[in-house]
Amino acid sequence: MAEASRDQDGEHGSIGRTLEVIGDRWTMLVLRDAFRGIRRFDHLCADLGIARPVLADRLRKLVAAGLLSRVRYQDHPARYEYHLTPMGIELSPALVALMRWGDKWLAGGGRDVQLVHGPCGTELQQAFWCTRCQTTFGPLAIRASVGPAPATA
Amino acid sequence: MAEASRDQDGEHGSIGRTLEVIGDRWTMLVLRDAFRGIRRFDHLCADLGIARPVLADRLRKLVAAGLLSRVRYQDHPARYEYHLTPMGIELSPALVALMRWGDKWLAGGGRDVQLVHGPCGTELQQAFWCTRCQTTFGPLAIRASVGPAPATA
Repeated sequence: MAEASRDQDGEHGSIGRTLEVIGDRWTMLVLRDAFRGIRRFDHLCADLGIARPVLADRLRKLVAAGLLSRVRYQDHPARYEYHLTPMGIELSPALVALMRWGDKWLAGGGRDVQLVHGPCGTELQQAFWCTRCQTTFGPLAIRASVGPAPATA
Repeated sequence: MAEASRDQDGEHGSIGRTLEVIGDRWTMLVLRDAFRGIRRFDHLCADLGIARPVLADRLRKLVAAGLLSRVRYQDHPARYEYHLTPMGIELSPALVALMRWGDKWLAGGGRDVQLVHGPCGTELQQAFWCTRCQTTFGPLAIRASVGPAPATA
């Protein structure tokens, strides 16, 4: 059992690696704002109430890790926006899940932001989905097995 | 814009509150192990390679926050297991999303743990779901609006 969760580098699997990249509170909040379309340094600073050197550090790390790209939007003087890359956009299920859990368990069911299906405006649901049974299911129906990925994955 | 993401307490909405409770690397790893059925102090210690005082601290905080419950499994001497509460179990979508993102983007598509639909063994998918359109959709189809929850939520 002692080695089950650690790979040969002594890391803690995909959750451990993920948290090394985004497991910092300011980093997650910068990403959340990026999803809301807040992309410019001064806007992020004002929205988050974050110190400028801390924001600069987190943006630099997010660009280096490949989650944000730096896009020039003005030439004189040079100014940049931070856009989510595909790698960043795919964090959306995790951020949505963290937000909804906080809404339910830490804010008494209230929420500051409502997430809806864009085309129709209906509040989104998040589910586990089985392509074989064509059904959604909850966490208690998940089974975990340690081992390599299946050939079809 | 400056106030959009902070409530009257200067907090950062549900993601901010959530990260205050679970936004610590060891805390997340303890929760992940709890989902895998690793529930006893010595087993967690061995699996994670975590220092005993650090593990004791994280377990105490998780019990205080309501995510784990302490269950006596032996009387002489008294020994306890840590079980996920309903509040803890509902973190599963977030942990699954973080794990799958790490599998894809930080481990070259490999994975240490495969998550399947228990009854049939098919690898699970995670999706956003619209109850009105009866369809799954991706992050780019999400729209966010700031405001109170809808009456039906």
